[in-house]
Order: sequence, then C-alpha cells, then structure tokens
Amino acid sequence: MQKILFGAAYYDEYMPYDRIDTDFKMMKAAGMNAVRIAESTWSTLEPEDGKFDFTHIERMLSYAELYGINVIVGTPTYAVPAWLVRKYPGILAVTSKGRNLYGPRQNMDITDRHYLFHAERVIRRLMEYVSGRSCVIGYQIDNETKYYDAAGEEVQRAFIEYLRKKFPDIDGFNREFGLDYWSNRVGSWEDFPDVRGTINGSLSAEFDKFRRSLVTDFFNWQIGIVNEYRRPEQFITHNFDYSWNGFSHGMQSDVNQFQAAANFTVAGTDIYHPSADMLTGEEIAFGGAMMRNLKPDVRNYLVLETQAQGNPGWLPYKGQLRLLAYSHLASGANSVMYWHWHSIHNSAESYWKGVLSHNLKENEIYEEARIIGRELQAVGEKLVDLRKKPEIAVMVNNGSLTGLSEFPIDADCTYNDILLWVCGALYRINAEYDIIPQESDHERLSGYKMIIAPAMYSATEQSLERLRRYAQEGGHLIMTFKSAVCDEYLKIYCDDQPHMLTECFGMTYDRFTDGRGVKLADTSFEADGTDVKYFMELLQPSAAYVLARYDTDAYGKCAAVTANSYGIGRSVYIGCFFEREALMRLLRNECREAYIDLPDVSYPIVVRTGTNGSGRQITYYMNYSGEKQSLIPQYGGTEILTGSRIPEGSALILDPWGLAIIESKI
Amino acid sequence: MQKILFGAAYYDEYMPYDRIDTDFKMMKAAGMNAVRIAESTWSTLEPEDGKFDFTHIERMLSYAELYGINVIVGTPTYAVPAWLVRKYPGILAVTSKGRNLYGPRQNMDITDRHYLFHAERVIRRLMEYVSGRSCVIGYQIDNETKYYDAAGEEVQRAFIEYLRKKFPDIDGFNREFGLDYWSNRVGSWEDFPDVRGTINGSLSAEFDKFRRSLVTDFFNWQIGIVNEYRRPEQFITHNFDYSWNGFSHGMQSDVNQFQAAANFTVAGTDIYHPSADMLTGEEIAFGGAMMRNLKPDVRNYLVLETQAQGNPGWLPYKGQLRLLAYSHLASGANSVMYWHWHSIHNSAESYWKGVLSHNLKENEIYEEARIIGRELQAVGEKLVDLRKKPEIAVMVNNGSLTGLSEFPIDADCTYNDILLWVCGALYRINAEYDIIPQESDHERLSGYKMIIAPAMYSATEQSLERLRRYAQEGGHLIMTFKSAVCDEYLKIYCDDQPHMLTECFGMTYDRFTDGRGVKLADTSFEADGTDVKYFMELLQPSAAYVLARYDTDAYGKCAAVTANSYGIGRSVYIGCFFEREALMRLLRNECREAYIDLPDVSYPIVVRTGTNGSGRQITYYMNYSGEKQSLIPQYGGTEILTGSRIPEGSALILDPWGLAIIESKI
Amino acid sequence: MQKILFGAAYYDEYMPYDRIDTDFKMMKAAGMNAVRIAESTWSTLEPEDGKFDFTHIERMLSYAELYGINVIVGTPTYAVPAWLVRKYPGILAVTSKGRNLYGPRQNMDITDRHYLFHAERVIRRLMEYVSGRSCVIGYQIDNETKYYDAAGEEVQRAFIEYLRKKFPDIDGFNREFGLDYWSNRVGSWEDFPDVRGTINGSLSAEFDKFRRSLVTDFFNWQIGIVNEYRRPEQFITHNFDYSWNGFSHGMQSDVNQFQAAANFTVAGTDIYHPSADMLTGEEIAFGGAMMRNLKPDVRNYLVLETQAQGNPGWLPYKGQLRLLAYSHLASGANSVMYWHWHSIHNSAESYWKGVLSHNLKENEIYEEARIIGRELQAVGEKLVDLRKKPEIAVMVNNGSLTGLSEFPIDADCTYNDILLWVCGALYRINAEYDIIPQESDHERLSGYKMIIAPAMYSATEQSLERLRRYAQEGGHLIMTFKSAVCDEYLKIYCDDQPHMLTECFGMTYDRFTDGRGVKLADTSFEADGTDVKYFMELLQPSAAYVLARYDTDAYGKCAAVTANSYGIGRSVYIGCFFEREALMRLLRNECREAYIDLPDVSYPIVVRTGTNGSGRQITYYMNYSGEKQSLIPQYGGTEILTGSRIPEGSALILDPWGLAIIESKI
Repeated sequence: MQKILFGAAYYDEYMPYDRIDTDFKMMKAAGMNAVRIAESTWSTLEPEDGKFDFTHIERMLSYAELYGINVIVGTPTYAVPAWLVRKYPGILAVTSKGRNLYGPRQNMDITDRHYLFHAERVIRRLMEYVSGRSCVIGYQIDNETKYYDAAGEEVQRAFIEYLRKKFPDIDGFNREFGLDYWSNRVGSWEDFPDVRGTINGSLSAEFDKFRRSLVTDFFNWQIGIVNEYRRPEQFITHNFDYSWNGFSHGMQSDVNQFQAAANFTVAGTDIYHPSADMLTGEEIAFGGAMMRNLKPDVRNYLVLETQAQGNPGWLPYKGQLRLLAYSHLASGANSVMYWHWHSIHNSAESYWKGVLSHNLKENEIYEEARIIGRELQAVGEKLVDLRKKPEIAVMVNNGSLTGLSEFPIDADCTYNDILLWVCGALYRINAEYDIIPQESDHERLSGYKMIIAPAMYSATEQSLERLRRYAQEGGHLIMTFKSAVCDEYLKIYCDDQPHMLTECFGMTYDRFTDGRGVKLADTSFEADGTDVKYFMELLQPSAAYVLARYDTDAYGKCAAVTANSYGIGRSVYIGCFFEREALMRLLRNECREAYIDLPDVSYPIVVRTGTNGSGRQITYYMNYSGEKQSLIPQYGGTEILTGSRIPEGSALILDPWGLAIIESKI
Repeated sequence: MQKILFGAAYYDEYMPYDRIDTDFKMMKAAGMNAVRIAESTWSTLEPEDGKFDFTHIERMLSYAELYGINVIVGTPTYAVPAWLVRKYPGILAVTSKGRNLYGPRQNMDITDRHYLFHAERVIRRLMEYVSGRSCVIGYQIDNETKYYDAAGEEVQRAFIEYLRKKFPDIDGFNREFGLDYWSNRVGSWEDFPDVRGTINGSLSAEFDKFRRSLVTDFFNWQIGIVNEYRRPEQFITHNFDYSWNGFSHGMQSDVNQFQAAANFTVAGTDIYHPSADMLTGEEIAFGGAMMRNLKPDVRNYLVLETQAQGNPGWLPYKGQLRLLAYSHLASGANSVMYWHWHSIHNSAESYWKGVLSHNLKENEIYEEARIIGRELQAVGEKLVDLRKKPEIAVMVNNGSLTGLSEFPIDADCTYNDILLWVCGALYRINAEYDIIPQESDHERLSGYKMIIAPAMYSATEQSLERLRRYAQEGGHLIMTFKSAVCDEYLKIYCDDQPHMLTECFGMTYDRFTDGRGVKLADTSFEADGTDVKYFMELLQPSAAYVLARYDTDAYGKCAAVTANSYGIGRSVYIGCFFEREALMRLLRNECREAYIDLPDVSYPIVVRTGTNGSGRQITYYMNYSGEKQSLIPQYGGTEILTGSRIPEGSALILDPWGLAIIESKI
Repeated sequence: MQKILFGAAYYDEYMPYDRIDTDFKMMKAAGMNAVRIAESTWSTLEPEDGKFDFTHIERMLSYAELYGINVIVGTPTYAVPAWLVRKYPGILAVTSKGRNLYGPRQNMDITDRHYLFHAERVIRRLMEYVSGRSCVIGYQIDNETKYYDAAGEEVQRAFIEYLRKKFPDIDGFNREFGLDYWSNRVGSWEDFPDVRGTINGSLSAEFDKFRRSLVTDFFNWQIGIVNEYRRPEQFITHNFDYSWNGFSHGMQSDVNQFQAAANFTVAGTDIYHPSADMLTGEEIAFGGAMMRNLKPDVRNYLVLETQAQGNPGWLPYKGQLRLLAYSHLASGANSVMYWHWHSIHNSAESYWKGVLSHNLKENEIYEEARIIGRELQAVGEKLVDLRKKPEIAVMVNNGSLTGLSEFPIDADCTYNDILLWVCGALYRINAEYDIIPQESDHERLSGYKMIIAPAMYSATEQSLERLRRYAQEGGHLIMTFKSAVCDEYLKIYCDDQPHMLTECFGMTYDRFTDGRGVKLADTSFEADGTDVKYFMELLQPSAAYVLARYDTDAYGKCAAVTANSYGIGRSVYIGCFFEREALMRLLRNECREAYIDLPDVSYPIVVRTGTNGSGRQITYYMNYSGEKQSLIPQYGGTEILTGSRIPEGSALILDPWGLAIIESKI
C-alpha cells in the first residue's frame, strides 16, 4: 500500500448542489487517497439541541468506501452552533475587548462547562457513528485550537488558583513578579485585580502561559473521549498552526505545541506561504522542522492543510504546486492535503480557493494535482516515512516569544522575525535543522553538532546550564542578542548578561541600543559594511575573539559578534540583527567549524535529504526559481520520478520550479 | 423668469449678530436668487418639547419676500435636540460599536418610534408655517440621510421579519446564504444571532440591503407628510450624497438612490471635490450622470450644496468657482447653491468655509460669485433645463459595492475606485455618460449605443440576461473584471465565469491573482508595457479575439482584454485594472467601434453638450487647467457669455480655468 | 555648601536583593548628593487598608543620613494599590473609552472622594514619618499629575456647575458656544448631554479647561496637607512634564502649569529627549524656558528626572551625559537627577534604564556620572542659582493648544510643532528665550525686547490689547499664522483677522489654504525657494511691507511674511509654516532690528549665559556635535572646569560633545 496521504478537505455541507460522485471520481482520477471531513460542521451535525443528523457524514463515508479513499474525521468543536449560544450566551468568551459576538469561529471560552458538555456529546455521537467504518483512518481533534484570548471571570479565577499553587507565599509571588512597581502589589489573593488591565509584563506573560495550558488540557480531554472509541490503527492528530503575518510565520504564541502534542499519536499541521514570485519554501522547511520534533519518537507528520490556489496573489505558477508537494515530503511529511477540494460560494473564505475553482471543473491546478497524484502512486512508497537527522537544532520557547512581545524590540523584529532570520539563513545555505524546545534534556542536545538559540529571552537556569554544559563538552553553541536575559517569569537576571553564560561566551555586555545607522566592520565572514538593524548589544569580550565589530566609535570599540573556545566546544554570540546575506556567510563558516558538511549549492537550489524505509538515502534537489538550474549531485543514484540513472559526478538539470529526487545507497 | 437657482444655504440661527438685511442685500447684489434654510435646526425650532419658535424661520421668509429670493425649506430632522434624547435615550442608535453618544448629527435610529413621533410633529408645525408663503419654492426632506449603521434590537427584529418573508423556508435561507459554513446555520428564526457579529458576507450584505430599504421607507414617510401641505408648484427633493474619501467619491453605499428617489419630484445633491491644482471636474460629471438618472423622466436636478471655499486646501484659484458653476449646469443641473453663505464661528465645521469668510465681508470668492450671478441673470434662460442624451451608460448597483466591500480586492481598488476609473477615463476623452441601475429594463438599455458595467460583482440572472440580449441585438457591451460573479445574495455562481455571459464574451476564466509586477502586452490599443495593478483575471478566449495579453508566461498565455462579436453586437471584457491612460485609449477605440462621435479635444479641455428649451444645441468648452487652451469647436454658433459669433471652423481661446458656451442650431 | 543637587530616583522597593549600602557608597563616590524616593510606592507603604509599613522609607532615610545625602520625598498618590480599587472600584476613572481597568498608574479619578480620603491618610502618615528627618530637604507632590481624561458622572456634574456659574444665562452660554449648530442647543442645564459625545469644539475645549482646573485644585489640596508638616526650609515641588511624542515635546495640554505652580515653592520637571546622533538639546532649553517662568520670582528650578540610559536608542555617546547635565544647569536648573539609579528587573519600564544596568555594576554611564559629580563638587558653587535674563519671550497658552487640537491644521503641524519650530529656531541661533503665559501683564511684557506669540489661536481681547500696546509702545512683536483667531471659548472673532491687530500688523487676510507646492519668493531674508508646508494665510498688507511673498499667482499676489512699524514698535506676522533654516534667517534679522545681540556662533555650538551668585557672568559654550569645534568667546575669563584663563579674543576648542564654561566679570 502506498502510504503517503494525498487529498483535500471536503465539505459536503457547503456544496451548492449534489456532486459527490463527480468529486470522488475526480479525486480518484487525480491519485488522491484521502479526504478530511467534519471539522467545523457542528451546526449541520446537530442542527438542534440533541438532534443529530449524520446525512453528510454518511454520504462521505459511503463514497469513500465506494472509491477506496481514506477519511480523516475532525471533531466539529471549533465553531459553535447558533442554538447553543442562544441557550448559553456565556459560552462566548470574554476577552480583553469584552464579550465576543456570535459569528466568527473560535469565539468561545474552551473552559466553559456548557460548551464542554455539548462538545462532549456531539463528539461521542460522531465517534459512535464513524469509528467502526473501514475508511476512517484517523481523527483530528478540533482545529487550530487556541485560547482565543478568553479572560472571563472563570478563567481568571482558575488563573489565581494556579498562581496560589505555584506561590504558596504571596510575598514570593509579589517579589518574583516585581509587583511593587507602580503599586501593583497584591496584598491578598482576594484583592487580585482584573488581569486584563495589568501593565506588569511578568503577570501578563504568566496569564498567557497559563492559558496555553488550558489548550493542552482541552486537547487531553478530547483525546480521552476519542480514545474510548478509536481503533488502535486509527491515528489521532491535531492541525497545529503558526503565528500569522498573512502567512505561516514562526511559532504559534498561543499553544505550547511541545506539551500539547504529547497525547496525540502523530503531529499534524497546516502551512500557508507566499506563492508565485514570492515563493521560497522557507515556511515548509520551518513547519517540518517544528512538526518532526513535537513528538521526537514519531518524527513524521501529517500536512493536513496547505494551499491549492489560496488567496488572490497566492496562485501558483506552473510547476509550483508540484514542487510544494515534494517540499513537504522532503521535510518528513507523510501527507499533502489541500485546503480544500472545492472553492466555497458564500460566507467568509470564498476567495481562499481550493483545488477546484468556483465552477467546480477540471482546471490547471487540478491538472497539476493529477500529475502529483500519479507520481505518488508510482513512487510514494520510496518517499514515505522519510527519516531525517539534521545535525543542527534551533531552540525555541513560547516564553521568549511572549517575553519579546511584552518587551518588544521593534514591530519588524519580533521573536519570530529573529527566529526566521536564523532559520531562513540556514535554509538558504542548505543546512537542515530541527526545532527543539528549551526544555530538551542533555541527551537530546548531545545529538546535534550545533545548537542555535535565537533570542532565547526567557530561559530557566536549568536550560542555561544545559546549554553551557553542551558547549563545554564539545557542542557548537550559537546564541543571538536578547538571549539568557530573564527567567521564566520575565524577571531580568540581575547579574552579568548573558546570564550564566558570560564565561561560556567569553564576553558580556550591559549596554544596547537601536543600531540606527551602524554597520558591521572587521568581520571575519566577509560582511564589512553590512547594515545593523533594529537592535545592537555592545559586546565586551573577555576571552572571546571578535568575529565582527560595529563601525562606530561613539560608544567605544565594541564587538558585534564573538566566538569563544569553551571547554572542548565553541560558543558564538551574535549581538545584533543584520542583513540575512551576512548571516548566511557567518553560519556557513560556523558549519565548517562544526564539521557540518553542506551541499555545494545553495538557494534557489534547495537540497533536502533523509533515509527511506529501505535504508536508502533520498535526496531532493529542488529549483525554487523560474530559471533552469544545473548542479552535480553529491552522490549518484536513481532519479526516482523519471527512473533515470544519475552517475556520480554527472550534471543534473532542474526545470523552472522543478525537482529531482535521487535514491542512493550510502 | 430666469429659472436657474443660484444661492447658498443660510443659517440665521448660527449668526454671531443680526446681519440679515446686509446679507440679503449682498446676495441680491451677487445675482443670487435662492437660499436653503432650516435643515438641522430642530433645537432652535423646538427649543423645548412641544414649544415651537419660528423666529428664525420668519426672519428668513420675510427678508426673502422683501428681496424676492426663493426659499428651499429643509425638514430639520437629521440632528436631534438634546431634550429629546434626554427623554428617550433609545433614540440614539445602537451600532456595531454600541450605543451612540449624543453630540454628532445623524446619530439616531431613524426607525425609533419616539424619534418618528417627534419628527412628525416638528415637520407638520414647520409645514403649517411655511407652505403658504410665496417665497417657498420647495422642500428638502432631511439631509444626506442614511441608516447610520443602526443595528439595535428593533432593527434586527425587523430584519428577521424581512428575511422570513423572503424565505418562508428557513432551509432555503440557510442554503442561499451558505450558513452551514463555520456552523453558522440558523435552525429556527428564534435562534437568529446578533447579526453584528456575523462573518457571513451574504448575511452582512443583506442586512445592509435591508437597512437601505429603511432609508427609502423613511423618505416616503416624510414625503407623505410634506405632501399633505405643499402646494403643487412646490418641489420636494433630497440632498443625496456619495461615498466619501475626503471628497465625493462614487456611489453612496448606504442608500439605494434609484429606489429612494421615486417619490421626490426632483433629485437634489451635494458634490464636494478637490480644488486648486487637484481640480478636474470628474466628481461633477459623475454626480450629474447619477442625478440625471435617479428620475429618468425628470432629468434635470438641483445642486443643493457645493463648496465655496470649503476646507483648507480647497480654496479655489481665480476662475475656478465660475468654471465649477458652469460645470454643474453643463451636467444638467438647474441650480448651484453653496454650502454655505457665511462661515461658522463655533463648533465643528468652522473651517468648512462659505462664500463669506469669518469676517463676513465681501471678498474674492464673493466677487467671483457676483460675476457668476450676473452672467446667469443674463443668459440663465438659455442654459436651464438642459436636455442631455449621452450615448453611453455606466451600470451600477449597491449590491456590487457592498459585495466588493465584503470581499475586497484592495483598499485602493474598491468598487468605487473601479467605477470612477471607468467614469474618469470616459470624462477625460469627452465621452459623456449616464449612470443607470442594474435593474434598468430592456427598453432603457436599448437607448444607449454602449453600456459599461464595471465590477458588476453581484448581478441577478435577469440583469445578466438583459445585458446578454442587449449585446446580441447589436449593443456594445463592456464589462470589467469581477463582474457577473455572484447573485444578489453574494452567492458565487457555481458555473463558468462570467456567469451566463461566457458565450457573449467568447471567453471564460477561473483563475485570478493580484497582478503584482505584470504588464500588458500585445495590446491593440497602444498600451504595451502598461502596469497591471491590484487584480487580474486570467482570461481564456474561446471565440473572442485578444485586445491585450499579460506579459508573463508563468500561468500560461492568458488574455487580459478580449472582444467578441456576439449576435450583431460587440462585447468587450477587461480582465484587470491598469493605468488610466491605457483605459482611455481602449475606450476611445471602442467608441469608434460603436459609432460614438467624440470631440477631437480631450482633457484638460472638457466638452459637455445638450439641448436647451429652444431646441438649440448648447456646447460647453471648459478649460480645466491653468494654461490657455485653443480649439476649433465642432459647430459654429454664438458664444453666449460674450454674445460673440463663432463661425464654423474658427478657433476658440479658453482662458486659464475659463470656458465658452456655444449655442448652435443643429 | 555646594547647592546643585545631583542624584537619582531610588526605589528600594524594586530591588532584587538588599544592596542599599553598596548603592549609597557608589552614589557617594560619584559625587551624588540627592535621592528622590517614595512616589508611586503606595502599595508597599500601605500594603493593607490602614496598615502602614515604613521599612523602605526608613532604610532610605537612615542610609541617606549615614552617607550625608539629601532626600526628596514624593507623595505616593499617582498609583493606587489593588486593595483600594477592590474596595472602591469607582476610584478608577470613567473616560471617553469607558471605565478604566486596574493596572496602569494614573488611572484614577483625582476627584473621587474615596481616593482623596485614602490619599490624604497615607500622605499624613508619610509626612509624620519623614518631615522631621534632617536628610529630607523637600517634597514632591504626586507625579506628572493630569486629569487622565476622567469624564465620569461626578466630573461632568461639576463641569455643569462650573458652566452655570460662568453663564447664569443659559442663552448666553448657547450663544457663546455656538450650540445651535447641528441642534446641539441646551435648553436647560438638566438636559445637558454626556459631554463625551460632543462635536462642539468650544464645549469640548471648555471641558478640558475645566479639567485642568481640577489638577490645580488637586495640587493645592495636597500642598495644604504637606504644608501642615513641612519645615520652613523644606521645599515643595512637582514633577511637571510636557506633551509627549516619544520625547518631551512642547506644552503639556492637560495641566495649566502657570496656574498650577502658584503654591509650590519651586518648580520641578522631567525632561526626556532624543540622544545619540539625534541629540540637540532643544528640549532642555525649552523645558528650562518654561520652568523658569512658572514662578517668575523663583526662576531656578529642579530637574527631578532626566534620562541616564533611557529607552533603547537613547543610549548616550561618550560625553553626552556630561554635556546634558551642564545643559540643564545652563538653563537655570539647580539639580540634575536621573530616572533612575538602577534599572528595573520586572514589570513595564525595564528598558527605561537607569544609571546602572540590570547587573547593577559600575559601567560607562556610571563612570561619566562620576566625572560630572566630581566636577560639580568642585565648581557647583559657581553654577548654582544662575540668573538668566533673556531678552525674548515666547508666549503660550493651553487654550491655543487645545484649540488647534480641536481644529487641527495637520498631524505634523500641531500647536506644539509650531511652538517648537519657533523655539528650535531661536535655540539654533543662540537667541535665549523665556516662555511666558498669555495672561502676562503689561509690566511683564515690557521687560522683553521681543515677544513672539506662535499660533496664539485662542486669545482673550485683554491679551490682544496688551500685545497691541506692547508693540505700540516700542516692543518688537512677532506672531505667526493661526493667531488671534478666536476667543477663550474658541468662538472665532467675526471681524477682520488677526482680531484687534490688523492695524498693528498693517495687514489682514481672510483666505488660507494648505500651501501644497508653494514656495517663498521675494524674501528679505535670503530664503527664496523655501517650501511652504501644511498651511498658509494669504496676507493682504495695508500699511505693512512685505518680507516674503508666495511664488504663486493663482490666488493673486499675496504676502507670506509682513512687517509693520506701529507706534514706536515693530510688528512682524509670519503667515505660513516653512523650513526652519529660513525661519532662523528671519529671526536673526529681527533680532538685529530689535537690538538683540546674538553670539557669532550658532548650532551645533550652543551658547547659554547667566549671572551667578557672585555677580559674575557665566557663559556655557557647548558642542552639540561629534566633531571638534573652535570659536572665539565674546568675553574672556576663566574656564571654570579646567581653571584655565581664556584671554579675550583667543580661541576656545570644544571636544566632540564637549563644553567650556567661562566666568567673566562684566
């Protein structure tokens, strides 16, 4: 059996007329083998309180069985029906802007007991109906779940309980959170003010942290219910998303995905990205690096949603849809599923177009999907379950993301901007990376030749100790500005920066400014004259040597980038933000220092690699440009899409937005 | 009797001291013959509940009678007195932002029964007082009436009733509006949620459509009252306005003016526009084209307000005030009335200056008004009741305006931007046009050589059939991108685009994108290299020939503009937005194809024409520039401002911002 | 005894660990002699209702006594504790945005009786504790007090009372405020609507004026309490601030500082400004000019807060901290106190850094402070109590600031922008100035050779008469556009502009526009071609001669800047905004006309002068640039920082960001 899932979300509920048979025929013809159904359809599934209607579900399951297509069933709980809100208006979350109105999805308080009662009932009825069906291969819990800024009385009450447990001594709480400032001291838990008004960054960030735990709780509660019904071979997943700047853009602030993923059987995700001339594939690489590491023992993951035609301006050029599908697989995905099969004719997302346009006919996108589907039928077996072992890990944590949004550097230099600055530079030099959590233990860290912790603003002392030890014992540690600044409650450490690591990096600093008009000088990585942007720390090396300085004397001679030999490892500190091209040069040098072997080619040629189930090395060579590219692959082998033999040392030609996949024995 | 009304709004109420005699003398000396009074003065007319004070009204009427000046009386209902709101706070509308505060005008719910009760009483008392007076020539109902985003409980209840009547079957309602999406299904009318929260574009648009009908109802209610009092020779009008981007800017979204105008005896309007070096006259042409067609059997209209000095930055150059006055008449207006006579010394609109500045003395603007007034006394008779018969109609509808604001293309490419892109291009090639509603019947359509429907996004099948037939029977039909996309409920048609017209245009498309970086190529109208902006549809001709292509191959070869012979007519489809200069070239070609005769000259020389009461052709030649212009008029005749004879073929010189008006026998 | 206070705010409450002894040692070593304590620390001072805890106060006082450091004690009332708000939620102000949430400082209604009751109690207890202590030299009432947009029922009720008193006749009130406009007439005081909704600029401005009086009342109430305790030698001050655009930026709109300062013994202020390459010193000169004149009989003032490291981007270059300290003294300050000693490790202002960074160690800033401290120990005696007698006064008033925010010109051309345009030009030509209130009497005006009234939009007739008389009797009067336009209720004067001064200026105007694309021409001050910006009045001279015209004929020939001989004085009217460089030229000419002697050098060399206690002239020569500068001082004397003798006519070299102070006998 081919195991790569290829398909789309399908909403029989939204169809303007009955065309289910046509659609399944078309999907089948395109080599599609999976549909995702039911998420967000509560109001058709339960049109009245307690009255259930499985018409659409049944139609989907029957046709799926008829055409031999797999079904992923989503629980419908992320959009509540009108009748439920009419009965229990309190289901609508109270946020910092007041009580939500009905209409939008994700407007509820996920801890509201009426919501939970009715959600449980509809989930159980749905599970009863679908879990025994042969076509059902797995479940998706809710969709893109977050806490939706819920800050009502109940949520706040629970937050105070959570704080009381953490801080039995209220004085300790006041001290840790610095509440004396501007008379914010809380004398007794009873006096706790409405947290929505707080100006205390520590308190505000802790409230967000607490609310992320509500999301994890919500997942575990639904998983518990679904587990009562699901067959062992059926997976259970979630559609995790990212921060959003018009596209997927770095870490999601409102979910601790590393914690939240614990009880799913496999990670799932949606990834949306620029297209046409803005297409780079960076978001796919980032999403894959994240998803592979949510469950380190189940490193493959499902792409449950990605764009077909998407929004205006996202329409792919010829060849891009195919390139994208393989890019997901090259990152370790075991599925490529479009959002969605058909474009929608009403409501809000009519111009977030699916594979089919509004006329629901075969079109250019469908044609390209059909090519992909047929190729996957032929070669999917060799691509599924790709094992990837990057030598580089990028360390992240939600606390730093929140922290730098409480204490921002610049609207264009957020935590995610810095994170993606690093990840984008790695991507462009074809240095593959994992994304790992700050909590990773020593063993996990030791598995990497290089660890980069960008803007790790909020860091526990344990995590800093682990990084220190990693470097000392021979690791290659790279940190950027705004790292090791404060603890998990955003209390800034009151000794030398970077906290606990001044010896490790052989430098310290206590001054920083915005870097306006400053350039890099004396660089060891051929980047003199590069503009410093947004922020710079004035590094004062003790043991470290200087990889770059600032070109200004106005603050005295200060370093911008330093490197240090520490124990038997190497520690590099990047004190400022600068143009990505220079960062690529710096990281290329550091990879050499760390004995990390990079491909000779770089972006727009993207090289991604892994080992398949037969133990063969699979190498993707992808052309992220509209011009033909030529290269000499590192290893010879078989180009599996064409079946042609590529001898070692012979050139490979990549079509515009084209790719080759070479299977080698190594 | 000279019948062109020339004058200003006058508020005795706002005067810092008694100067009514001085002002009437000054107006009289300037050849003014009309004042507009009383709108917005409820609190002086009825200073306490039920106590009426006609002091200011009486003063105005007496002096008007004394000086032989006509009076237009406005009902005062668009600004409510403080005592009324204190008694009935519910009069203040509840909008999407909550309950309005007292202070601004137009903050009330026009369906509130207390508001209506008190409005009726004050209108009746006013009518009793003024209707018999000889100087009173007509009435203005309210002012710039809209629904002011009222969305309180009563309004929403009425909306549900309206929906129930339209959709006796709630399932049909859910289907038509696509409410299954994101679980928005409404199981029973009782469950109907607060519509202010909806994310369903169809529902939101329908709510707006319903609320536009409230405005029409409000007009008809007031008209009914006024009709009880008015003498047959007294007109009844309204001051219709436009969308607003700092100036009058295309269609007003909140009123269906074609419906609303039904029971008025004559259309009225206010038009505000850029001035000084930004002056083009486009807004005047557009407003006239609209107003002439609100009541097709009464094609002349009243300009009830236009700017004298206006806001800072609007101060007219020497000659511009005069040019503007004649521009209104050239569009078919029978009046030019300034807002307002005097500048106001307090409150909110102190810097929306009138004819007089704050010192209330003769000034440069007054001097120029006096020139206009004297000229109109001399020649007004020849200019009044101008009959205009453009050969081109531009088709509009509120539904498309709402639709493209629910599903926007770009903040700089709204429905009105596209509409004015077309109208502005026509204006600049001196192709005069009418504005007609989508509902226009076959007979009305047949009267035009060319019909242009820009961005007719929301279109009923009946209207599309009428356009198809128009083309088939020999009409010249031009549509732009985003036309014929969805029905009157914004449900996108689920067959090929443009719906019902693929054969007519000989092309279809199902892909579109934002057109970033794309240019026109292979144009038949000398516009290769023109930048495409905001949006492009990838047209795939079947029968059509290609008037322009896109210069990119990334999506395959696609057409940008197509033309088709259909029946005995011609159909042109413009698939994207591009620079206006290129559109002017395209439209000039199409006019030639349609045997529409354009003047040889174009903007900044503006030519406008019509037939006067004596059956003579009146042609305005206007110079919208600061440089002298020279031209040879199409027909000889008499220049009526100077009385000089212009022989056929001889040159005419236009002063900077100057004009000539030629009367010819034809 | 050295009398210049040099030090910082110190919050023992916020310290992460006990380091008070270390800090006092460090301060002492740096020559610091003053700390400011206690403002904003109510919640530690009174952690529960009625339970007081003087631990931190006592620690500070004891160490201050131990190290011989002076203490300024702030009343803690500008940030309320959580328990107080929990008991009396009504303490949180209702503003135009609704009821405030707890969290931010300055969120209370300063007229709330519960707030006042508890504030009084804590002030009294604090005063009892500290007033007898030898180290305590003075008190600061509250901090940066304003009315915080409080607009709750009680505040509005008091406002109505205030209006009733002013306008016993409600018709007069309606007339003066122009409330007939848009039916806003208030028939009886009982009908008075919620003023938050008003669109009447006069009413809105009067509400702000009334609320400024609440701030004065609040000060006087606290001063009364503190006066019961303070020893005669202890001063009582306030930390007055400015409008804010990311930095101190002109007049504070929410306080009438001239009135508010009456009962303090000395004025105090905080000044924040750009730094690094954006540093100019303009804000320091402006703040000083203002503070020196709040209490004309006590012209020296205290700088209670200014930046050490401040926000990112404010980090001073080497030498700037020292230059800044002397700049304050050169303006007449008797103190330089940083906000604050230590950087804070939590909450909201963690990156508003103090002298010490978060590691609380000696650093570059501390080093530079130490230089300043030691120099002041050596020479402070010669610099303290500097008597300054500028020959120029710039006249300001809150009413004009409010007026031009009700009727704005442009977001970049506010009242403060115009004011600082003038003040900045004066600063850069080294023309020292005072800031005086519009209410200044004839005697005060007569003391100046030149009075400039920029944008004095709202002006009483008395004040205009005083200015007229000033000019007539030989003064040199300069006004700009938007002056003498309306009375104190923003009613525009209904005769010729500028009201009462047309004869004085020998010109009038009634037209104005935005000046887009216009340039100055025919200038007498070598500024032809200078861009006019934002706004221009079309001046029509009668007696005046023209100093500049506009380069456009489109409005006829109009003047831009005029001068007139009036009586035995000279009156100059600047009709538009233009580039500062041109204004500097114009003002330099006018100074010559007024026999005001300017230094030969100009910005970046800044010259400031005064007379010290020994009657010697002190002249500061400051280099506001990163390049060395050289100049020849006007008078020889002793450079007091180095003790070197500077003979008359010899050159003085200023280091980058350096300065020299010459003491001369004159």
